[in-house]
Amino acid sequence: MAKVTGLDGIVAADTDISLVDGTQGHLVYRGFWAKDLAVQYEYEEVAYLLCNGVLPDQAQNQQFTKNLTESRQLPEALKRLLDIIPREMPIMGVLQTAIAMLSGGIFIWPPTKEQAIRITAILPTIIAYRYRMQNGLSVIEPKPELGHTANFLYMLTGELPKPAHVKALGAYLILGMEHGMNASTFASRVVLSTQSDMASAISAAIGAMKGPLHGGAPTEVIAMLDAIGSKEHAEPWIRESLERGDRLMGFGHRIYKTKDPRAEALREVTEALSGNDPWFDLAVHVEKTAVRLLAEYKPGRHLYANVEFFAASIMRAIALPTELFTPTFTAARVVGWSAHLLEQAEVNRIFRPQSVYTGPMPG
Amino acid sequence: MAKVTGLDGIVAADTDISLVDGTQGHLVYRGFWAKDLAVQYEYEEVAYLLCNGVLPDQAQNQQFTKNLTESRQLPEALKRLLDIIPREMPIMGVLQTAIAMLSGGIFIWPPTKEQAIRITAILPTIIAYRYRMQNGLSVIEPKPELGHTANFLYMLTGELPKPAHVKALGAYLILGMEHGMNASTFASRVVLSTQSDMASAISAAIGAMKGPLHGGAPTEVIAMLDAIGSKEHAEPWIRESLERGDRLMGFGHRIYKTKDPRAEALREVTEALSGNDPWFDLAVHVEKTAVRLLAEYKPGRHLYANVEFFAASIMRAIALPTELFTPTFTAARVVGWSAHLLEQAEVNRIFRPQSVYTGPMPG
Repeated sequence: MAKVTGLDGIVAADTDISLVDGTQGHLVYRGFWAKDLAVQYEYEEVAYLLCNGVLPDQAQNQQFTKNLTESRQLPEALKRLLDIIPREMPIMGVLQTAIAMLSGGIFIWPPTKEQAIRITAILPTIIAYRYRMQNGLSVIEPKPELGHTANFLYMLTGELPKPAHVKALGAYLILGMEHGMNASTFASRVVLSTQSDMASAISAAIGAMKGPLHGGAPTEVIAMLDAIGSKEHAEPWIRESLERGDRLMGFGHRIYKTKDPRAEALREVTEALSGNDPWFDLAVHVEKTAVRLLAEYKPGRHLYANVEFFAASIMRAIALPTELFTPTFTAARVVGWSAHLLEQAEVNRIFRPQSVYTGPMPG
Repeated sequence: MAKVTGLDGIVAADTDISLVDGTQGHLVYRGFWAKDLAVQYEYEEVAYLLCNGVLPDQAQNQQFTKNLTESRQLPEALKRLLDIIPREMPIMGVLQTAIAMLSGGIFIWPPTKEQAIRITAILPTIIAYRYRMQNGLSVIEPKPELGHTANFLYMLTGELPKPAHVKALGAYLILGMEHGMNASTFASRVVLSTQSDMASAISAAIGAMKGPLHGGAPTEVIAMLDAIGSKEHAEPWIRESLERGDRLMGFGHRIYKTKDPRAEALREVTEALSGNDPWFDLAVHVEKTAVRLLAEYKPGRHLYANVEFFAASIMRAIALPTELFTPTFTAARVVGWSAHLLEQAEVNRIFRPQSVYTGPMPG
C-alpha cells in the first residue's frame, strides 16, 4: 500500500527566522529568546522583528504600528463576502475564503512587507466581524488608538479590555507567531514557490491550520481548569486523575522533551499578573501541584506544563469562546507565515519532491 | 543567507496513482499508459480510474457519469460569491476562493469520493459562470445530456461543440489530470495532512497552480502558431527563428528527456482529427517540420514537441481565450488532486519537515 513519509527529519529550508530546539528547550526568534520577547515586548514589535530581522527603534515602531492600524479596515467586497457566507461555516473556513479573495490587486508576486502588514492587520477584524455577526451582535469598528492586541479584544467584546488581559493575550500571540517548518508554514511556502501570491499562500496555510492535527487549541485544558474550579480542589482532583491512569491535559509535548519555552514564558507572565484574574491564580497553582504530583506518580518522565496549559487560563480569563481559539492562534501565526514567505521569495525554488510509484505497470 | 532545497529528489510519498518517468518517457495512470487512456477513453472513465484504481464497467461508468452530471449545479451561496468578487480578479483567484467556501457541510475530514465528484463537477461550472459574467454574457446552465467535456465547452460558448473539439479537449484534460508529486498536488497533500478537509486542500492546490512556475499554459506556442499562420510559412519561419538563435516554443521539457508521452498522445489524437480543423492540420505540419529542422540545427539534442505544443493547437481550435488556459488545466488536474487526497487520507501522516536555523543566537 502507498505510504507517506511526512518528511520527518528532512530539511526543507534553511531559515533565519526561528530555531526550535526541543532537546534544549530553546525557541529563538531572529537571535532573541522568544520567552524574553513575550515577556518584554508587544505584538507590533515582535511582528516587526520577525519580518524585518531586527527589533524596531522608536520611530520604526511608531511607523509600523501606524501602518498596521491603518490597514485594519475591511474592504467592501470582503464585508459582502462575510455577509453571504453560510451561517454555519466555521470561522477558519471563513478566514481561508476571505484571504483567498484578497488575491490580485496588491497581492501579486513577489510578497512584500506591505502585503504582510495588510493581512496581519485585517485578520482580527475579519474574525471579530464574523464572530459578532454569527452571534447576532452589532459589528464593532476597529479603534485606532488601541494597539493590535487590545483592539482585537475590543472588537470582539465592544469593551475596553483590562491591561492584564491585553498583556497576557499579547504574550500568547507573540509565542504563537512562529514555530519553524510546521505544516501550515510549510504549506504556505510550497504554494508561494510557484511564484503564486502571498494571499494565496496564507489562505492555504489557514487551510492547513484548521486541521485538528495542527494543534494549538487548548480546549481540553480549559475543561480541566473548569472541572478543578478552585485551588483547594487541585490536589485531590489531579491525584484522583493520576490514580485512574488518565493523561493529564496540558503536560508534555511532542517536540519539547524538556521544559517548553513558550510555557515558561506564559508562566512568567501569568505569575506576574497574579491577583489580576482568578484564572491566572488558579493556573499557577494547578501547574505547581501537577508538576509535583507527576514527579511522584511518573518518576523520571520529566513532564512539564506545555504552552496549551497556560494558554487555557488566558483564554478562560478573557472569556474567549472555544470557536475563536484556532482563529486567534491564526492571528498570531500569520506573522510567522509572512516572514517565511518573504524569506522564501528571496531564495525561491519550486517545491517538487519525488513520489515512488507502487502501482502496477501496464501489461 | 537562508536557502531552500525544493526537496528535489526527496521522496514525499509512495503512490499507487501515477508513474512519471522522464528518462523512459513513461506516464502511467494506475497501471495504464496515460497515452492509451487519452486516445481511447473519456474524461469520466479516466477520472473514475484515478480515484478508484480500476476502469469502470458500463454500469459503474453510467452511475459515475450520472453523479458527476447531477453535481454540476452551483449552490446559491456560490453564485452570490461569484457575483460579488471584484470584476478584475483573475479566474484562478476566483476558483481558490470559491472552493475554499465549500469547506464545511459535506466537506469535512476524511475526504470521500462523493466530495471528489462534487468538486470535479462544479469546477467547470464556476469557470464558465464567471467567464461569461465577466464578459457581460448571459450565464448558460449545464446541459445534463452532455458529457463532462462537451458540457464545459457548451457552458462557455452556449453552442453545441463539434465532436472533434470535444475529443481533442477531452484528450488534453485526461493528460492533464495527473503528474506525480508536482507543487500543487504536494501542497494539497500537505494541507490535508493536518486532517483538514478536501475543499481546503484543493483550494490550496489551486493557489499553487496559479503561480507561473507551475507551468501548463501554452500561450507562447499559440503566439508561434498564429505567427506561422499557414503550412507553407512553417519551414521559412522556423528556419529563420533557429538562425537567429531563438528558442523554439513548445519543444523540450524539464522532466521528459525523451519524447513526452503526453505530447505523443495529443499528436496521435490531433493527427486522427486532421481535416476537422485547420489548426490541427497546421500543428501536425509545424511539429514535423520543427523536429526535422531542430535535428539539423541542434544535432544530438533530441528535442521533441512537448505537451504545450499540441495543447496550443487544441486551445486555438476551440478558441479558448488565454485567461481560461490555467483554469481549464485546473479542471483537469482536480482529478489527480482528488485521487492523491483520497490516498493521503488512507495512510495519513502530518507533513512536518525540518528547517535549519541560520540566524544569530541570543547574546
